[in-house]
Parts: sequence; structure tokens; C-alpha cells
Amino acid sequence: MIVSLFGDLAQHDGDHISGVALTEIAGLMGIRAEAIRVALHRLRKEGWVDSIREGRSSQHQLTQRGRKDTVSATPRIYARARTTTQHWNIVGASSDTGLEPVLREVTSAVELSRRFALIPSDDMDLPKDLMVFAITPKTVPHWMQSSVCPQDLADAALALEHALTQTNAMISAAGTFDPVQRAALRTLTVHRWRKIVLRIPNLPDMFFPPNWRGEACRDLTFDLLDQLPAPTLAELEASALQRR
Amino acid sequence: MIVSLFGDLAQHDGDHISGVALTEIAGLMGIRAEAIRVALHRLRKEGWVDSIREGRSSQHQLTQRGRKDTVSATPRIYARARTTTQHWNIVGASSDTGLEPVLREVTSAVELSRRFALIPSDDMDLPKDLMVFAITPKTVPHWMQSSVCPQDLADAALALEHALTQTNAMISAAGTFDPVQRAALRTLTVHRWRKIVLRIPNLPDMFFPPNWRGEACRDLTFDLLDQLPAPTLAELEASALQRR
Repeated sequence: MIVSLFGDLAQHDGDHISGVALTEIAGLMGIRAEAIRVALHRLRKEGWVDSIREGRSSQHQLTQRGRKDTVSATPRIYARARTTTQHWNIVGASSDTGLEPVLREVTSAVELSRRFALIPSDDMDLPKDLMVFAITPKTVPHWMQSSVCPQDLADAALALEHALTQTNAMISAAGTFDPVQRAALRTLTVHRWRKIVLRIPNLPDMFFPPNWRGEACRDLTFDLLDQLPAPTLAELEASALQRR
Repeated sequence: MIVSLFGDLAQHDGDHISGVALTEIAGLMGIRAEAIRVALHRLRKEGWVDSIREGRSSQHQLTQRGRKDTVSATPRIYARARTTTQHWNIVGASSDTGLEPVLREVTSAVELSRRFALIPSDDMDLPKDLMVFAITPKTVPHWMQSSVCPQDLADAALALEHALTQTNAMISAAGTFDPVQRAALRTLTVHRWRKIVLRIPNLPDMFFPPNWRGEACRDLTFDLLDQLPAPTLAELEASALQRR
């Protein structure tokens, strides 16, 4: 959740968020200050976050590595339309080798079986002993849609659609929010959407089950974010101090 | 061997070969009359051959079913160039179903794994729950060539190439042959070639290993058959009576 917050509001070099602001935002989510301290400790140990003490307060920021990972995920998380790679290859490994080495390298690969997978056709530097055929999909049966979009992902999308629909209605009714409230609501939204969107393969439409609600979630996510403009870090800090 | 002989010289409706001619031809191959009688008995039981007694002699012919199977294999056995299907699909079955039902239906399918196979793209009426992608092969690695052309098939082609090369040399040196001799030599050649050619998939060249000798065998087979023109059945019977 903290990484989602930094990704949403403070992913640039030099951006930092105070402990005070973090505690206020987390408080709105029902997370206690103690839990935030534990989470920050773990994120520091894992190399995601740097913290600087300033007297009785502290400032937190993404590490260089944390920023790099966050920046690289941003285009997918914040894309207002699904990005579809039109040209795919089916690749095959021998029964001895299996596909594990390829799946480790090509993050956009979609595994079909232990020996076969789909990968975007612009992926270079494949192992020499890999079967590679360019494909033009003709029939994508139901079982394959379910394997590309597994049931838990489809269920998560359906659940998020319901939650976002309700939240959108409540937010429209409630009127305006201060910067800390907006930060908290944005973070909650981005955090749940992120868990879904990063699992959606860039495959053409015919690979998705007819009841796939991921694109409805995308639209609702941006409806919501558009109603809750991202505060600047200065606005956020001022709002946090005001709330104390 | 008897079926190869009928396929080569007597596959038309009304064609028949006498017991006398069969015995002469088999004799040149080192097969005794008793073994021919046993083989004919089995072929009658299996519905391949009909026999009619005529006094002390007998006449043998393919049954309607035997003729049908023989005629349908003839274009592949006697093709002077490999027939290559240019357009292929890769098809995939779910892990529950597997490919067995498809492989039973589509005789030209090339199995890649328990769940994936290549089939010519003009094959209609595929099960609805089959994944179907048209393919453009880019890389066919060594292990896949070996699976399309297994070692025993490659070995059989290499062995036949040697045998045919020797036979061609001996036949060129020996001069002319009578119709029974020609029938025997043709049958031996067609019989061995048939076992190889019917296993060669119609895949494009890049699917074959670089040391694949099947096409050399094809050329040698037709060099040999061209030197040994097929006798008419009348010539064969006259030649058989003369040899007794």
C-alpha cells in the first residue's frame, strides 16, 4: 500500500512524504501508526524505501531501485485503454529443457503448458533451441481463455467492479475531499487495480472470456481517479498538519 | 509384400494375378510357395484379397476394401517430388481432453506433445474446444526436427539409400530382365520405399533434419522403377508360365 502511494504521488527523484502525512493517510484506511512503522522497517530492509530523521519527524522516499520498479510499472497501471500486442509467437521447448528459462526472461510470456507459451513477437534474443512460430489466432476455446484469465483473476475483477461502482456513487454524493482524503482514496483504488492490471496479458480480445470485467474496472478506476485529483506533495503535507 | 505387388501391378477393378505368377515372383525373393499360401490365407481373412480356384490353379485379386486402401496410398507412394502443405495450424487441446480424438481423425497431424499438434490448415470440422492458430514457422530447432523425423525413420532412409544405390548399379550392369524379374524387383523396391514415404509428414523443408535422406531415396526409387518398366498382367502371366 505504501509503495502504491509513492507510485501514485511521489515517484520522482527528490519526492518524499513525511511520517506525519503517511500516518494521516493510513489512519483513514484504518491502519495504525505502529503498523506503518513496521511496514516502513520492512520496506527499508528490502531496499524499497529510504527514511531520514528530521528532529522528531521523518521523511520517506523511494530508493533508486524502488523508483525504477515503480516507474516501469506505471505505464501499465495508468493506461486508460488496454495495450494489446498484435503480433505473437508460439514458442516450444524440448521435453528435456522445458520453458522455465524462457519464462524467467520474457515477463510478458503467457504459459500454455510445460513446453509451450505465447510471447510477443518483438521479443529478441530467444534461446537457439526454441521452436518459434508466428501465429494468427483462429479459435481460442473457453478452456484457453480461462487459462489466460484464471478464475481468481476474473473473480477479483468482478469484486473490484462492484467495489468501485459503490465507491464512485458514494464519492459523487459526498462532494469534496481534502488532499489527505484524496491520497487515501486514490491509493486504495490504485492498489487494488494494480493487483489486477499487472496480471492482464497483452493478448488480443479473443483470448479473454466473455464475462471478463477487467476493462470495466479500468474505466471505473479512472472515473474515480479523475474525481480525486492527485494532490501535490506540498498540498498533502499542509493538509496532514491541518488534520492533526 | 503381396499388397505392395498388387498395388504396383494389379490395383484396378478386374485385375488379378495367378497363383503361378505369385509363386514365381516370390521365388525370386527367396520366399517359398508355402509361405505365400499362408500369407494369402491371412490376407483373405483380413479382407484384403479374394481368391478364386480355377481347376488346379487359382486367381487372386484385391477386395473392394483392399483396392480402396491401396488406391488411396498410391499418390503418396508414387509421388516423384515430396508434397508439401504450405499452410499449417498449431492446435491445442485442454489438459483434460488431450489430443487423442483429433489425432484419430486427422491422419496428417504431426504430434508435438500430449496437448499440441500441427495439422494442415485445410482440415475442416475440428472439435469446437480446440485452440487453432495459423502458423508461420520462424525457427524449427534440432529437437523438433528429430521429433518430426524420428531417428528410426532417418536410419531407415539412410539404409534404403545404400541398398537402392547398390541395386541401381547392379541393375544397370545386368542388362534386361523378364517380366517376372521386373515384378519382383519393383515389388521389393516399392515395399521398402512405402514404409518410409507413408511416414514422411507434408511439412515444409525446415522441419527436416539436415541429414535427412528420404528425398535421395525417392529419387533412387524412381531411377530404379524407370529402369524396370511395369509389365502388363498378360506379360507377367506369360513370363511366369515360361519360367516353370
